[in-house]
Amino acid sequence: MKNLPLIFISNDDGINAPGLRALINMMREIGRVVVVAPDKPQSGTAHAITIHTPLRLHLIKQEAEYEEYSCSGTPADCVKLGFKVVLRGKPDLLVSGINHGSNASVSIIYSGTMAAVFEGAMSGVPSIGFSLVDLSVDADFNPSAKFVKVITQAVLTNGLPVGVCLNVNIPKADEGDIQGVKICRQSAGCWQEDFDERTDPIGRNYYWLKGIFIKSDNGLDTDEEALANNYVSIVPVQFDFTAHTAIEELHKWKLDV
Amino acid sequence: MKNLPLIFISNDDGINAPGLRALINMMREIGRVVVVAPDKPQSGTAHAITIHTPLRLHLIKQEAEYEEYSCSGTPADCVKLGFKVVLRGKPDLLVSGINHGSNASVSIIYSGTMAAVFEGAMSGVPSIGFSLVDLSVDADFNPSAKFVKVITQAVLTNGLPVGVCLNVNIPKADEGDIQGVKICRQSAGCWQEDFDERTDPIGRNYYWLKGIFIKSDNGLDTDEEALANNYVSIVPVQFDFTAHTAIEELHKWKLDV
Repeated sequence: MKNLPLIFISNDDGINAPGLRALINMMREIGRVVVVAPDKPQSGTAHAITIHTPLRLHLIKQEAEYEEYSCSGTPADCVKLGFKVVLRGKPDLLVSGINHGSNASVSIIYSGTMAAVFEGAMSGVPSIGFSLVDLSVDADFNPSAKFVKVITQAVLTNGLPVGVCLNVNIPKADEGDIQGVKICRQSAGCWQEDFDERTDPIGRNYYWLKGIFIKSDNGLDTDEEALANNYVSIVPVQFDFTAHTAIEELHKWKLDV
Repeated sequence: MKNLPLIFISNDDGINAPGLRALINMMREIGRVVVVAPDKPQSGTAHAITIHTPLRLHLIKQEAEYEEYSCSGTPADCVKLGFKVVLRGKPDLLVSGINHGSNASVSIIYSGTMAAVFEGAMSGVPSIGFSLVDLSVDADFNPSAKFVKVITQAVLTNGLPVGVCLNVNIPKADEGDIQGVKICRQSAGCWQEDFDERTDPIGRNYYWLKGIFIKSDNGLDTDEEALANNYVSIVPVQFDFTAHTAIEELHKWKLDV
Protein backbone atom coordinates (compact mmCIF):
# COMPACT_ATOMS: atom_id res chain seq x y z
CA MET A 1 0.00 0.00 0.00
CA LYS A 2 3.00 2.29 0.50
CA ASN A 3 3.22 2.88 -3.23
CA LEU A 4 -0.20 4.47 -3.37
CA PRO A 5 0.08 8.20 -4.10
CA LEU A 6 -0.49 10.58 -1.18
CA ILE A 7 -3.36 12.91 -2.13
CA PHE A 8 -4.10 16.11 -0.19
CA ILE A 9 -7.65 17.46 -0.40
CA SER A 10 -9.08 20.86 0.47
CA ASN A 11 -11.97 23.07 -0.67
CA ASP A 12 -13.69 26.37 0.07
CA ASP A 13 -17.25 25.23 0.78
CA GLY A 14 -16.08 23.74 4.07
CA ILE A 15 -15.59 20.37 5.70
CA ASN A 16 -19.28 19.39 5.50
CA ALA A 17 -19.88 20.22 1.84
CA PRO A 18 -21.30 17.38 -0.29
CA GLY A 19 -18.81 18.29 -3.04
CA LEU A 20 -15.89 17.62 -0.69
CA ARG A 21 -17.42 14.30 0.40
CA ALA A 22 -17.80 13.27 -3.24
CA LEU A 23 -14.16 14.17 -4.01
CA ILE A 24 -12.91 12.27 -0.94
CA ASN A 25 -14.74 9.12 -2.08
CA MET A 26 -13.27 9.43 -5.59
CA MET A 27 -9.71 9.97 -4.31
CA ARG A 28 -9.84 7.08 -1.82
CA GLU A 29 -10.13 4.78 -4.84
CA ILE A 30 -6.81 6.17 -6.12
CA GLY A 31 -4.53 6.78 -3.14
CA ARG A 32 -3.89 7.57 0.50
CA VAL A 33 -5.84 10.68 1.42
CA VAL A 34 -5.32 13.55 3.87
CA VAL A 35 -8.09 16.18 4.07
CA VAL A 36 -7.64 19.64 5.62
CA ALA A 37 -10.69 21.77 4.87
CA PRO A 38 -12.18 24.96 6.35
CA ASP A 39 -14.49 24.42 9.34
CA LYS A 40 -17.07 26.77 7.73
CA PRO A 41 -17.97 27.88 4.20
CA GLN A 42 -15.33 30.16 2.67
CA SER A 43 -16.77 30.89 -0.78
CA GLY A 44 -15.45 34.07 -2.35
CA THR A 45 -12.53 34.13 0.05
CA ALA A 46 -10.07 34.02 -2.86
CA HIS A 47 -6.41 33.74 -1.82
CA ALA A 48 -6.91 35.35 1.60
CA ILE A 49 -4.56 34.22 4.37
CA THR A 50 -5.01 34.61 8.11
CA ILE A 51 -2.39 36.89 9.64
CA HIS A 52 -4.30 38.79 12.35
CA THR A 53 -5.54 35.76 14.31
CA PRO A 54 -4.06 32.32 15.02
CA LEU A 55 -5.35 29.13 13.41
CA ARG A 56 -6.95 26.06 14.93
CA LEU A 57 -6.68 22.53 13.56
CA HIS A 58 -9.12 19.81 14.62
CA LEU A 59 -8.64 16.07 13.95
CA ILE A 60 -11.93 14.56 12.79
CA LYS A 61 -11.06 11.08 11.61
CA GLN A 62 -7.97 8.89 11.40
CA GLU A 63 -7.98 5.40 9.89
CA ALA A 64 -5.94 3.27 7.49
CA GLU A 65 -4.78 5.41 4.55
CA TYR A 66 -7.05 8.27 5.60
CA GLU A 67 -6.92 11.37 7.84
CA GLU A 68 -9.36 14.23 8.04
CA TYR A 69 -8.98 17.62 9.75
CA SER A 70 -10.94 20.87 9.87
CA CYS A 71 -9.14 24.20 10.10
CA SER A 72 -10.40 27.59 11.27
CA GLY A 73 -8.75 29.40 8.35
CA THR A 74 -9.12 29.97 4.64
CA PRO A 75 -8.41 27.42 1.88
CA ALA A 76 -4.89 28.87 1.45
CA ASP A 77 -4.34 28.52 5.22
CA CYS A 78 -5.55 24.89 5.04
CA VAL A 79 -2.89 24.07 2.47
CA LYS A 80 -0.07 25.88 4.29
CA LEU A 81 -0.99 24.35 7.66
CA GLY A 82 -1.74 20.98 6.10
CA PHE A 83 1.63 20.65 4.40
CA LYS A 84 3.68 22.05 7.29
CA VAL A 85 1.95 20.71 10.41
CA VAL A 86 -0.09 17.66 9.29
CA LEU A 87 2.00 16.14 6.48
CA ARG A 88 5.31 17.67 7.58
CA GLY A 89 6.16 17.42 3.91
CA LYS A 90 4.46 17.46 0.55
CA PRO A 91 1.86 15.20 -1.02
CA ASP A 92 2.11 13.66 -4.50
CA LEU A 93 -0.99 15.57 -5.57
CA LEU A 94 -3.36 18.26 -4.34
CA VAL A 95 -7.00 18.33 -5.38
CA SER A 96 -9.53 20.96 -4.33
CA GLY A 97 -13.31 20.92 -4.53
CA ILE A 98 -15.57 19.72 -5.86
CA ASN A 99 -16.81 23.30 -5.74
CA HIS A 100 -20.53 23.96 -5.71
CA GLY A 101 -20.60 26.42 -8.64
CA SER A 102 -18.50 27.45 -11.62
CA ASN A 103 -14.95 28.75 -11.36
CA ALA A 104 -14.62 29.28 -15.11
CA SER A 105 -13.52 32.54 -16.76
CA VAL A 106 -12.69 35.37 -14.32
CA SER A 107 -14.55 33.66 -11.47
CA ILE A 108 -11.19 32.01 -10.82
CA ILE A 109 -9.95 35.27 -9.26
CA TYR A 110 -12.58 35.11 -6.45
CA SER A 111 -12.26 31.38 -5.89
CA GLY A 112 -11.10 29.85 -2.63
CA THR A 113 -11.12 26.44 -4.34
CA MET A 114 -8.55 27.66 -6.85
CA ALA A 115 -6.57 29.50 -4.13
CA ALA A 116 -5.87 26.11 -2.55
CA VAL A 117 -4.74 24.90 -5.97
CA PHE A 118 -2.41 27.88 -6.56
CA GLU A 119 -1.04 27.41 -3.04
CA GLY A 120 -0.19 23.78 -3.83
CA ALA A 121 1.36 24.71 -7.16
CA MET A 122 3.50 27.44 -5.55
CA SER A 123 4.90 24.70 -3.31
CA GLY A 124 5.76 22.60 -6.35
CA VAL A 125 2.92 20.08 -5.90
CA PRO A 126 0.84 19.05 -8.98
CA SER A 127 -2.54 20.59 -8.18
CA ILE A 128 -6.05 20.44 -9.65
CA GLY A 129 -9.24 22.34 -8.82
CA PHE A 130 -12.60 20.73 -9.64
CA SER A 131 -15.85 22.70 -9.84
CA LEU A 132 -19.35 21.66 -10.83
CA VAL A 133 -21.50 24.29 -12.53
CA ASP A 134 -24.30 23.81 -9.99
CA LEU A 135 -24.56 25.99 -6.89
CA SER A 136 -27.18 23.76 -5.27
CA VAL A 137 -26.39 21.97 -2.04
CA ASP A 138 -28.21 18.99 -3.61
CA ALA A 139 -25.98 19.03 -6.71
CA ASP A 140 -25.43 15.57 -8.23
CA PHE A 141 -21.70 14.82 -8.28
CA ASN A 142 -22.06 11.29 -9.69
CA PRO A 143 -21.73 12.26 -13.38
CA SER A 144 -18.45 14.02 -12.48
CA ALA A 145 -16.76 10.96 -11.03
CA LYS A 146 -15.31 9.33 -14.14
CA PHE A 147 -13.95 12.64 -15.45
CA VAL A 148 -12.40 13.58 -12.10
CA LYS A 149 -10.70 10.19 -11.93
CA VAL A 150 -9.37 10.25 -15.52
CA ILE A 151 -7.95 13.78 -15.11
CA THR A 152 -6.43 12.90 -11.72
CA GLN A 153 -4.76 9.79 -13.15
CA ALA A 154 -3.47 11.81 -16.12
CA VAL A 155 -1.79 14.31 -13.78
CA LEU A 156 -0.33 11.52 -11.63
CA THR A 157 1.05 9.92 -14.82
CA ASN A 158 2.25 13.01 -16.70
CA GLY A 159 2.93 15.55 -13.96
CA LEU A 160 2.41 19.22 -14.76
CA PRO A 161 4.79 21.82 -16.20
CA VAL A 162 6.57 23.96 -13.57
CA GLY A 163 4.35 26.80 -12.35
CA VAL A 164 1.20 25.37 -13.95
CA CYS A 165 -1.92 23.96 -12.27
CA LEU A 166 -5.38 22.99 -13.59
CA ASN A 167 -8.76 24.68 -13.33
CA VAL A 168 -11.32 21.99 -14.19
CA ASN A 169 -15.01 22.86 -14.55
CA ILE A 170 -17.72 20.27 -15.06
CA PRO A 171 -21.07 21.06 -16.69
CA LYS A 172 -24.33 20.37 -14.89
CA ALA A 173 -25.61 17.44 -16.92
CA ASP A 174 -26.97 13.96 -16.46
CA GLU A 175 -24.74 10.89 -16.67
CA GLY A 176 -24.14 10.23 -20.36
CA ASP A 177 -24.90 13.78 -21.47
CA ILE A 178 -21.37 15.05 -20.81
CA GLN A 179 -19.65 15.01 -24.20
CA GLY A 180 -16.03 14.65 -23.07
CA VAL A 181 -13.08 16.80 -22.02
CA LYS A 182 -11.64 19.91 -23.70
CA ILE A 183 -8.36 21.72 -23.06
CA CYS A 184 -9.27 25.42 -23.04
CA ARG A 185 -8.13 28.92 -22.33
CA GLN A 186 -9.82 31.18 -19.75
CA SER A 187 -12.74 33.01 -21.36
CA ALA A 188 -12.75 36.80 -21.30
CA GLY A 189 -15.67 38.17 -19.31
CA CYS A 190 -16.54 40.02 -16.16
CA TRP A 191 -19.04 40.17 -13.35
CA GLN A 192 -21.43 43.06 -13.72
CA GLU A 193 -22.23 44.03 -10.16
CA ASP A 194 -25.37 45.35 -8.73
CA PHE A 195 -26.19 46.02 -5.10
CA ASP A 196 -29.44 45.38 -3.33
CA GLU A 197 -29.80 48.53 -1.21
CA ARG A 198 -31.87 48.10 1.97
CA THR A 199 -32.58 50.12 5.10
CA ASP A 200 -32.10 48.75 8.61
CA PRO A 201 -34.60 49.35 11.46
CA ILE A 202 -32.78 52.51 12.54
CA GLY A 203 -32.79 54.00 9.05
CA ARG A 204 -29.26 53.33 7.85
CA ASN A 205 -28.50 51.81 4.46
CA TYR A 206 -26.82 48.48 3.89
CA TYR A 207 -25.89 46.72 0.65
CA TRP A 208 -26.00 43.13 -0.55
CA LEU A 209 -23.62 42.27 -3.37
CA LYS A 210 -25.20 40.59 -6.37
CA GLY A 211 -24.17 40.36 -9.97
CA ILE A 212 -24.36 38.57 -13.28
CA PHE A 213 -21.53 37.16 -15.36
CA ILE A 214 -21.09 38.79 -18.76
CA LYS A 215 -19.09 36.75 -21.28
CA SER A 216 -17.17 38.94 -23.73
CA ASP A 217 -15.43 36.29 -25.77
CA ASN A 218 -16.64 34.47 -28.87
CA GLY A 219 -13.65 32.12 -29.05
CA LEU A 220 -14.41 28.44 -29.59
CA ASP A 221 -11.45 27.46 -27.39
CA THR A 222 -12.67 28.93 -24.09
CA ASP A 223 -13.83 27.23 -20.90
CA GLU A 224 -17.24 28.94 -21.10
CA GLU A 225 -17.75 27.65 -24.64
CA ALA A 226 -16.81 24.09 -23.64
CA LEU A 227 -19.19 24.15 -20.69
CA ALA A 228 -22.02 25.58 -22.80
CA ASN A 229 -21.62 22.54 -25.07
CA ASN A 230 -21.61 20.09 -22.16
CA TYR A 231 -17.86 19.44 -22.19
CA VAL A 232 -15.64 19.34 -19.12
CA SER A 233 -13.20 22.26 -19.44
CA ILE A 234 -9.54 22.05 -18.37
CA VAL A 235 -7.67 25.35 -18.29
CA PRO A 236 -3.96 25.20 -17.42
CA VAL A 237 -3.36 28.27 -15.23
CA GLN A 238 -0.30 29.96 -13.76
CA PHE A 239 0.62 32.29 -10.91
CA ASP A 240 3.06 34.37 -12.95
CA PHE A 241 0.66 37.23 -13.63
CA THR A 242 3.11 39.19 -15.83
CA ALA A 243 1.46 40.53 -19.00
CA HIS A 244 4.58 39.77 -21.05
CA THR A 245 3.11 41.22 -24.23
CA ALA A 246 2.71 44.63 -22.55
CA ILE A 247 6.36 44.98 -21.53
CA GLU A 248 7.50 46.26 -24.94
CA GLU A 249 4.71 48.87 -24.97
CA LEU A 250 5.66 50.15 -21.51
CA HIS A 251 9.31 50.48 -22.49
CA LYS A 252 8.23 53.26 -24.88
CA TRP A 253 6.86 55.41 -22.04
CA LYS A 254 8.72 58.44 -20.71
CA LEU A 255 9.24 57.75 -17.04
CA ASP A 256 12.18 60.02 -16.25
CA VAL A 257 11.94 61.65 -12.84
CA MET B 1 -11.95 72.14 -13.13
CA LYS B 2 -14.33 69.74 -14.88
CA ASN B 3 -11.53 68.52 -17.13
CA LEU B 4 -9.53 67.20 -14.21
CA PRO B 5 -9.40 63.39 -14.27
CA LEU B 6 -11.58 61.54 -11.76
CA ILE B 7 -9.32 59.32 -9.66
CA PHE B 8 -10.69 56.53 -7.45
CA ILE B 9 -8.51 55.43 -4.52
CA SER B 10 -8.65 52.32 -2.35
CA ASN B 11 -6.19 50.21 -0.37
CA ASP B 12 -6.02 47.21 1.96
CA ASP B 13 -4.37 48.71 5.04
CA GLY B 14 -7.60 50.59 5.77
CA ILE B 15 -8.93 54.12 5.81
CA ASN B 16 -6.52 55.34 8.50
CA ALA B 17 -3.29 54.00 6.99
CA PRO B 18 -0.54 56.60 6.49
CA GLY B 19 0.16 55.11 3.04
CA LEU B 20 -3.42 55.87 1.95
CA ARG B 21 -3.15 59.43 3.29
CA ALA B 22 0.10 59.92 1.33
CA LEU B 23 -1.50 58.63 -1.88
CA ILE B 24 -4.57 60.88 -1.40
CA ASN B 25 -2.32 63.94 -1.09
CA MET B 26 -0.40 63.00 -4.24
CA MET B 27 -3.57 62.38 -6.28
CA ARG B 28 -5.28 65.60 -5.18
CA GLU B 29 -2.49 67.43 -7.04
CA ILE B 30 -3.53 65.62 -10.22
CA GLY B 31 -7.32 65.30 -10.24
CA ARG B 32 -10.68 65.03 -8.53
CA VAL B 33 -10.53 62.26 -5.95
CA VAL B 34 -13.01 59.76 -4.52
CA VAL B 35 -11.75 57.42 -1.80
CA VAL B 36 -13.53 54.22 -0.73
CA ALA B 37 -11.30 52.24 1.61
CA PRO B 38 -11.85 49.43 4.14
CA ASP B 39 -12.82 50.60 7.64
CA LYS B 40 -10.21 48.26 9.14
CA PRO B 41 -6.91 46.69 7.99
CA GLN B 42 -7.42 43.99 5.35
CA SER B 43 -3.86 42.87 4.62
CA GLY B 44 -3.63 39.39 3.14
CA THR B 45 -7.28 39.46 2.20
CA ALA B 46 -6.43 38.95 -1.48
CA HIS B 47 -9.39 39.10 -3.85
CA ALA B 48 -11.97 38.06 -1.23
CA ILE B 49 -15.49 39.41 -1.68
CA THR B 50 -18.26 39.63 0.91
CA ILE B 51 -21.22 37.42 0.03
CA HIS B 52 -22.41 36.12 3.43
CA THR B 53 -23.02 39.52 5.09
CA PRO B 54 -24.20 42.90 3.76
CA LEU B 55 -21.88 45.88 3.38
CA ARG B 56 -21.90 49.27 5.07
CA LEU B 57 -20.68 52.52 3.53
CA HIS B 58 -19.87 55.55 5.67
CA LEU B 59 -19.31 59.09 4.35
CA ILE B 60 -16.32 60.64 6.09
CA LYS B 61 -15.63 63.84 4.16
CA GLN B 62 -17.12 65.73 1.24
CA GLU B 63 -15.62 68.92 -0.16
CA ALA B 64 -14.76 70.48 -3.52
CA GLU B 65 -13.24 67.84 -5.83
CA TYR B 66 -12.98 65.37 -2.93
CA GLU B 67 -15.08 62.64 -1.28
CA GLU B 68 -14.02 60.03 1.23
CA TYR B 69 -15.88 56.92 2.43
CA SER B 70 -15.07 53.92 4.56
CA CYS B 71 -16.59 50.52 3.75
CA SER B 72 -17.06 47.46 5.97
CA GLY B 73 -15.82 45.11 3.24
CA THR B 74 -12.68 43.99 1.48
CA PRO B 75 -10.69 46.03 -1.07
CA ALA B 76 -12.54 44.27 -3.92
CA ASP B 77 -15.86 45.15 -2.24
CA CYS B 78 -14.73 48.79 -1.94
CA VAL B 79 -14.16 48.99 -5.69
CA LYS B 80 -17.45 47.27 -6.61
CA LEU B 81 -19.48 49.37 -4.16
CA GLY B 82 -17.52 52.52 -4.97
CA PHE B 83 -18.13 52.29 -8.71
CA LYS B 84 -21.76 51.21 -8.46
CA VAL B 85 -23.13 53.15 -5.49
CA VAL B 86 -20.79 56.13 -4.98
CA LEU B 87 -19.65 57.04 -8.50
CA ARG B 88 -22.62 55.46 -10.30
CA GLY B 89 -20.16 55.09 -13.14
CA LYS B 90 -16.46 54.63 -13.70
CA PRO B 91 -13.47 56.83 -12.87
CA ASP B 92 -10.71 57.78 -15.31
CA LEU B 93 -8.17 56.00 -13.15
CA LEU B 94 -7.98 53.71 -10.12
CA VAL B 95 -4.98 53.77 -7.78
CA SER B 96 -4.52 51.54 -4.75
CA GLY B 97 -2.12 51.84 -1.85
CA ILE B 98 0.38 52.99 -0.99
CA ASN B 99 0.73 49.58 0.63
CA HIS B 100 2.87 49.22 3.72
CA GLY B 101 5.05 46.36 2.48
CA SER B 102 6.13 44.72 -0.78
CA ASN B 103 3.72 43.20 -3.28
CA ALA B 104 6.48 42.09 -5.61
CA SER B 105 6.90 38.53 -6.96
CA VAL B 106 4.25 36.04 -5.78
CA SER B 107 3.18 38.31 -2.91
CA ILE B 108 0.80 39.78 -5.48
CA ILE B 109 -1.43 36.72 -5.06
CA TYR B 110 -2.13 37.49 -1.37
CA SER B 111 -2.49 41.24 -1.87
CA GLY B 112 -5.67 43.17 -1.16
CA THR B 113 -4.02 46.26 -2.65
CA MET B 114 -3.61 44.46 -5.96
CA ALA B 115 -7.11 42.92 -5.71
CA ALA B 116 -8.53 46.46 -5.87
CA VAL B 117 -6.37 47.02 -8.94
CA PHE B 118 -7.51 43.82 -10.68
CA GLU B 119 -11.10 44.72 -9.83
CA GLY B 120 -10.68 48.11 -11.52
CA ALA B 121 -9.01 46.56 -14.55
CA MET B 122 -11.76 43.95 -14.91
CA SER B 123 -14.19 46.88 -15.16
CA GLY B 124 -12.08 48.42 -17.93
CA VAL B 125 -10.57 51.20 -15.78
CA PRO B 126 -6.79 51.88 -16.05
CA SER B 127 -5.55 50.75 -12.63
CA ILE B 128 -2.27 50.96 -10.69
CA GLY B 129 -1.20 49.47 -7.37
CA PHE B 130 1.57 51.18 -5.39
CA SER B 131 3.48 49.46 -2.60
CA LEU B 132 6.45 50.62 -0.53
CA VAL B 133 8.88 47.92 0.62
CA ASP B 134 8.54 49.02 4.26
CA LEU B 135 6.04 47.35 6.59
CA SER B 136 6.47 50.01 9.28
CA VAL B 137 3.53 52.20 10.26
CA ASP B 138 6.11 55.04 10.33
CA ALA B 139 7.26 54.35 6.77
CA ASP B 140 8.43 57.48 4.92
CA PHE B 141 6.31 57.92 1.79
CA ASN B 142 7.94 61.22 0.72
CA PRO B 143 10.64 59.69 -1.51
CA SER B 144 7.83 57.81 -3.35
CA ALA B 145 5.91 60.92 -4.36
CA LYS B 146 7.67 61.94 -7.56
CA PHE B 147 7.66 58.37 -8.89
CA VAL B 148 3.99 57.83 -8.05
CA LYS B 149 3.10 61.07 -9.85
CA VAL B 150 5.19 60.35 -12.97
CA ILE B 151 3.75 56.84 -13.33
CA THR B 152 0.20 58.09 -12.74
CA GLN B 153 0.60 60.82 -15.38
CA ALA B 154 2.06 58.28 -17.82
CA VAL B 155 -1.00 56.04 -17.43
CA LEU B 156 -3.38 59.00 -17.79
CA THR B 157 -1.51 59.98 -20.98
CA ASN B 158 -0.97 56.56 -22.57
CA GLY B 159 -3.76 54.43 -21.14
CA LEU B 160 -3.11 50.73 -20.62
CA PRO B 161 -3.54 47.74 -22.96
CA VAL B 162 -6.88 45.92 -22.54
CA GLY B 163 -6.75 43.48 -19.63
CA VAL B 164 -3.50 44.89 -18.24
CA CYS B 165 -2.89 46.77 -14.98
CA LEU B 166 0.28 47.78 -13.13
CA ASN B 167 1.96 46.42 -10.00
CA VAL B 168 4.37 49.15 -8.85
CA ASN B 169 6.77 48.53 -5.97
CA ILE B 170 8.99 51.22 -4.49
CA PRO B 171 12.21 50.45 -2.62
CA LYS B 172 12.76 51.66 0.93
CA ALA B 173 15.37 54.32 0.34
CA ASP B 174 16.07 57.95 1.17
CA GLU B 175 15.15 60.74 -1.21
CA GLY B 176 17.80 60.82 -3.93
CA ASP B 177 18.88 57.20 -3.41
CA ILE B 178 16.16 55.75 -5.67
CA GLN B 179 17.85 55.15 -9.01
CA GLY B 180 14.83 55.40 -11.32
CA VAL B 181 12.07 53.21 -12.74
CA LYS B 182 12.36 49.77 -14.41
CA ILE B 183 9.74 47.84 -16.40
CA CYS B 184 10.00 44.27 -15.09
CA ARG B 185 8.47 40.83 -15.04
CA GLN B 186 7.21 39.13 -11.87
CA SER B 187 10.08 37.31 -10.18
CA ALA B 188 9.75 33.58 -9.55
CA GLY B 189 9.78 32.78 -5.86
CA CYS B 190 7.64 31.50 -3.03
CA TRP B 191 6.86 31.98 0.62
CA GLN B 192 8.37 29.26 2.76
CA GLU B 193 5.88 28.91 5.58
CA ASP B 194 6.48 28.09 9.14
CA PHE B 195 3.99 28.04 12.00
CA ASP B 196 4.55 29.21 15.52
CA GLU B 197 2.84 26.47 17.52
CA ARG B 198 1.54 27.55 20.93
CA THR B 199 -0.70 26.09 23.63
CA ASP B 200 -3.71 27.94 25.05
CA PRO B 201 -4.57 27.98 28.81
CA ILE B 202 -6.75 24.87 28.46
CA GLY B 203 -4.04 22.88 26.68
CA ARG B 204 -5.13 23.10 23.05
CA ASN B 205 -2.73 23.99 20.26
CA TYR B 206 -3.02 27.05 18.05
CA TYR B 207 -0.85 28.20 15.18
CA TRP B 208 0.44 31.58 14.00
CA LEU B 209 1.38 31.79 10.35
CA LYS B 210 4.85 33.12 9.63
CA GLY B 211 7.15 32.70 6.69
CA ILE B 212 10.07 33.96 4.67
CA PHE B 213 10.17 34.83 0.97
CA ILE B 214 12.52 32.66 -1.08
CA LYS B 215 13.50 34.12 -4.46
CA SER B 216 14.16 31.44 -7.07
CA ASP B 217 14.98 33.61 -10.06
CA ASN B 218 18.33 35.02 -11.15
CA GLY B 219 16.88 37.08 -14.00
CA LEU B 220 18.05 40.68 -14.27
CA ASP B 221 14.60 41.76 -15.53
CA THR B 222 12.55 40.91 -12.41
CA ASP B 223 10.82 43.16 -9.90
CA GLU B 224 12.85 41.71 -7.03
CA GLU B 225 16.12 42.48 -8.86
CA ALA B 226 15.03 46.07 -9.59
CA LEU B 227 14.07 46.65 -5.94
CA ALA B 228 17.32 45.13 -4.68
CA ASN B 229 19.14 47.74 -6.77
CA ASN B 230 16.99 50.62 -5.48
CA TYR B 231 14.85 50.96 -8.61
CA VAL B 232 11.08 51.34 -8.65
CA SER B 233 9.66 48.23 -10.34
CA ILE B 234 6.66 48.32 -12.69
CA VAL B 235 5.22 44.91 -13.64
CA PRO B 236 2.34 44.92 -16.13
CA VAL B 237 0.00 42.17 -14.88
CA GLN B 238 -3.13 40.50 -16.23
CA PHE B 239 -6.13 38.57 -14.97
CA ASP B 240 -6.11 36.02 -17.78
CA PHE B 241 -4.35 33.29 -15.80
CA THR B 242 -4.20 30.83 -18.71
CA ALA B 243 -0.80 29.17 -19.04
CA HIS B 244 -0.94 29.34 -22.84
CA THR B 245 2.39 27.53 -23.26
CA ALA B 246 1.00 24.48 -21.44
CA ILE B 247 -2.00 24.01 -23.74
CA GLU B 248 -0.03 22.14 -26.42
CA GLU B 249 1.44 19.80 -23.81
CA LEU B 250 -1.99 18.99 -22.38
CA HIS B 251 -3.39 18.23 -25.84
CA LYS B 252 -1.04 15.20 -25.91
CA TRP B 253 -2.69 13.64 -22.85
CA LYS B 254 -5.08 10.71 -23.11
CA LEU B 255 -8.30 11.89 -21.52
CA ASP B 256 -10.83 9.53 -23.06
CA VAL B 257 -13.53 8.46 -20.65
